[in-house]
Amino acid sequence: MPKFNENFFDLKESYLFSEIAHRVNAYSEKNPNKKIIRLGIGDVTLPLGSKVISQLHEGIDALASAETFKGYGPEQGYDFLRLAIVDYYSRNNISINPCEVFVSDGAKSDTGNITDIFGRDNIVLIPDPVYPVYVDTNIMSGRNIIYIDANEENNFLPMPDDNVHSDIIYICSPNNPTGATYNRDQLKNWIDYALENNAIILYDSAYECFITDETLPRSIYAIEGAKKCAIEFCSLSKTAGFTGVRCGYTIIPEDLTFLSSSGIKISVNAMWNRRQTTKFNGVSYIVQKGAAAVFSPEGMAQCKSNIKYYQENAKIILNGLLKKNISCFGGVNSPYIWFKCPNNMDSWDFFDYLLDNAQIVGTPGAGFGKNGQKFFRITSFGTRDSTIEAMKRIDELI
Amino acid sequence: MPKFNENFFDLKESYLFSEIAHRVNAYSEKNPNKKIIRLGIGDVTLPLGSKVISQLHEGIDALASAETFKGYGPEQGYDFLRLAIVDYYSRNNISINPCEVFVSDGAKSDTGNITDIFGRDNIVLIPDPVYPVYVDTNIMSGRNIIYIDANEENNFLPMPDDNVHSDIIYICSPNNPTGATYNRDQLKNWIDYALENNAIILYDSAYECFITDETLPRSIYAIEGAKKCAIEFCSLSKTAGFTGVRCGYTIIPEDLTFLSSSGIKISVNAMWNRRQTTKFNGVSYIVQKGAAAVFSPEGMAQCKSNIKYYQENAKIILNGLLKKNISCFGGVNSPYIWFKCPNNMDSWDFFDYLLDNAQIVGTPGAGFGKNGQKFFRITSFGTRDSTIEAMKRIDELI
Repeated sequence: MPKFNENFFDLKESYLFSEIAHRVNAYSEKNPNKKIIRLGIGDVTLPLGSKVISQLHEGIDALASAETFKGYGPEQGYDFLRLAIVDYYSRNNISINPCEVFVSDGAKSDTGNITDIFGRDNIVLIPDPVYPVYVDTNIMSGRNIIYIDANEENNFLPMPDDNVHSDIIYICSPNNPTGATYNRDQLKNWIDYALENNAIILYDSAYECFITDETLPRSIYAIEGAKKCAIEFCSLSKTAGFTGVRCGYTIIPEDLTFLSSSGIKISVNAMWNRRQTTKFNGVSYIVQKGAAAVFSPEGMAQCKSNIKYYQENAKIILNGLLKKNISCFGGVNSPYIWFKCPNNMDSWDFFDYLLDNAQIVGTPGAGFGKNGQKFFRITSFGTRDSTIEAMKRIDELI
Repeated sequence: MPKFNENFFDLKESYLFSEIAHRVNAYSEKNPNKKIIRLGIGDVTLPLGSKVISQLHEGIDALASAETFKGYGPEQGYDFLRLAIVDYYSRNNISINPCEVFVSDGAKSDTGNITDIFGRDNIVLIPDPVYPVYVDTNIMSGRNIIYIDANEENNFLPMPDDNVHSDIIYICSPNNPTGATYNRDQLKNWIDYALENNAIILYDSAYECFITDETLPRSIYAIEGAKKCAIEFCSLSKTAGFTGVRCGYTIIPEDLTFLSSSGIKISVNAMWNRRQTTKFNGVSYIVQKGAAAVFSPEGMAQCKSNIKYYQENAKIILNGLLKKNISCFGGVNSPYIWFKCPNNMDSWDFFDYLLDNAQIVGTPGAGFGKNGQKFFRITSFGTRDSTIEAMKRIDELI
């Protein structure tokens, strides 16, 4: 009989957001008249900007006549989009070659599928708490994970320990779920550590568009040495509200090479290219047309206006919690507000308490790792009205 | 340093279609005035039907206003599309549950990613010649592959050998590249073999819409016992011209379970669900709207009209080759015509000969396996004019 990948059986039974959905459904069945406010999953609510909308329509129009029809596109993405992304980086004074850009259907796919190019025998360093996909996909591959504590003491920004060796390092900045964002010096420390350990950094910058503090790096390539040790994953989900449209991109510098024990030079770019050409057939032409519009001056202005709306929500949430003397992280340079549960409550208990008494859905910190046990995440992606209403309810409850 | 997946180094250097592109580019640089006819890659040329176009536009319109906006969708696909696919199967008297349908961005992704759920220690049976993705993705996973010869003697429809055990069996019918299609009795033999060996069949039915002979099965589930041993992969690339739109689907019956050595019941559906929810975030809402339109009466009629056009191309190619007494396979119930290279030529030599002397690009059989060494594939996906012109040139040349 087929032998299955038994590493799957080491995964936790259910994904965090399924458990949340389960509890919310049970509550609303019992309480059909209560109005629930959902500030749990990091999903956007504002519609796409008009520039993106018009370019998506144009993409479809091209498929409606034989003269302009597009069939299979390049697995790595169309040049028009790769160049638009290169140009976006150049605005932050970062120089990327088009062949270093891989367009995909989202950062979740790429951060998951990247595990394909690595062997099983690696020491993987993952911060705790963090986006569960890094942990789950490495468990699926049977790899040895070392966790690094992110907690109140280090402002949820753990720094490398020179006494601990690792081969593959995950960094998410601005962080999901804590909203904590590394500054230049801190990232430089990580790069130095990676270069010293001959390790690779997998850098998730999905929330870079929420950075308002101009001294903070929006890309790891803003720091010297990064091209020799880091892959960067990014997404249009939060930048442009593409959670339902599906488009992301991954940057793999040509300089990112390693020398194997047998003296062969391994190009990470070439390995990912082989992975993608073999197991992926490119992103929908329609979606790529819309994605390119994001990086146009008009498209970007519309995206920024939406981001500003969410940032104002974040401020409302943050101020409301601070007023109650709750210890908060994120909320600035990040769409997430991460805070300590009142009265030393456990995060799932606080989840139930908030749902039962204020009909607000957030995300229990425990879902992101053991250091999240006493913490809670609220997102700024709701509507203004529901955000204000939620904070009013919290104000009355706590 | 990171340990890489060294199985990648066992892959052939370049993917078949890259080598073809390389040779064609070299030729056209030297001969800028020659008009090349491309009948190589299996990519469609006709525009999408108007019903699909209008539904794609509607999908975008929904994203333009907050009231109808769609963010993250279910990783498995929206119910409206899963139900449309269930209904499509029911028209062929096959009963599928919606939870057995997984919508994806294409069959290439799914046939590649399915390897994630299996352990390394499996004996994989793959016909030769065949679509290269099955072989390459299993090499990437370091698995032991047994090839089963498809050749003139068995009409390119190899049957199981009861003396050879295997755990995972790939079947592609109608076959890419040979166009050969299994009948019901033959498929029943494969299912009996799989059940006896406690093996799993990975059945690729991407070309099912080209079957005109009503006695031939369009799905493996048309045959008794299949739900206990087979996964089916299908795609809208050829059914609806979605090569650039990107949508496919995979059926994993709930009955497809295995008992592990330690007595645990393994549900293949649950394992794939875990893989997809962890490493995939669903298909673009826009694309799913267009895909659902494919299965509407009007949408399907438009798709069938396009398929008929390609089928007539296939007839033109087949008749032209038969006139020259060339031994042909496929071309009926398949968009591919697979034929023996004239004068006992090797397939890459014939590729160069046809390019140099008739400016026609086809696909050398050797690219699909050793049994393709003396064979050649031409597709019916060109325009009518270019198909007629190509056959005129072949008529003069051979």
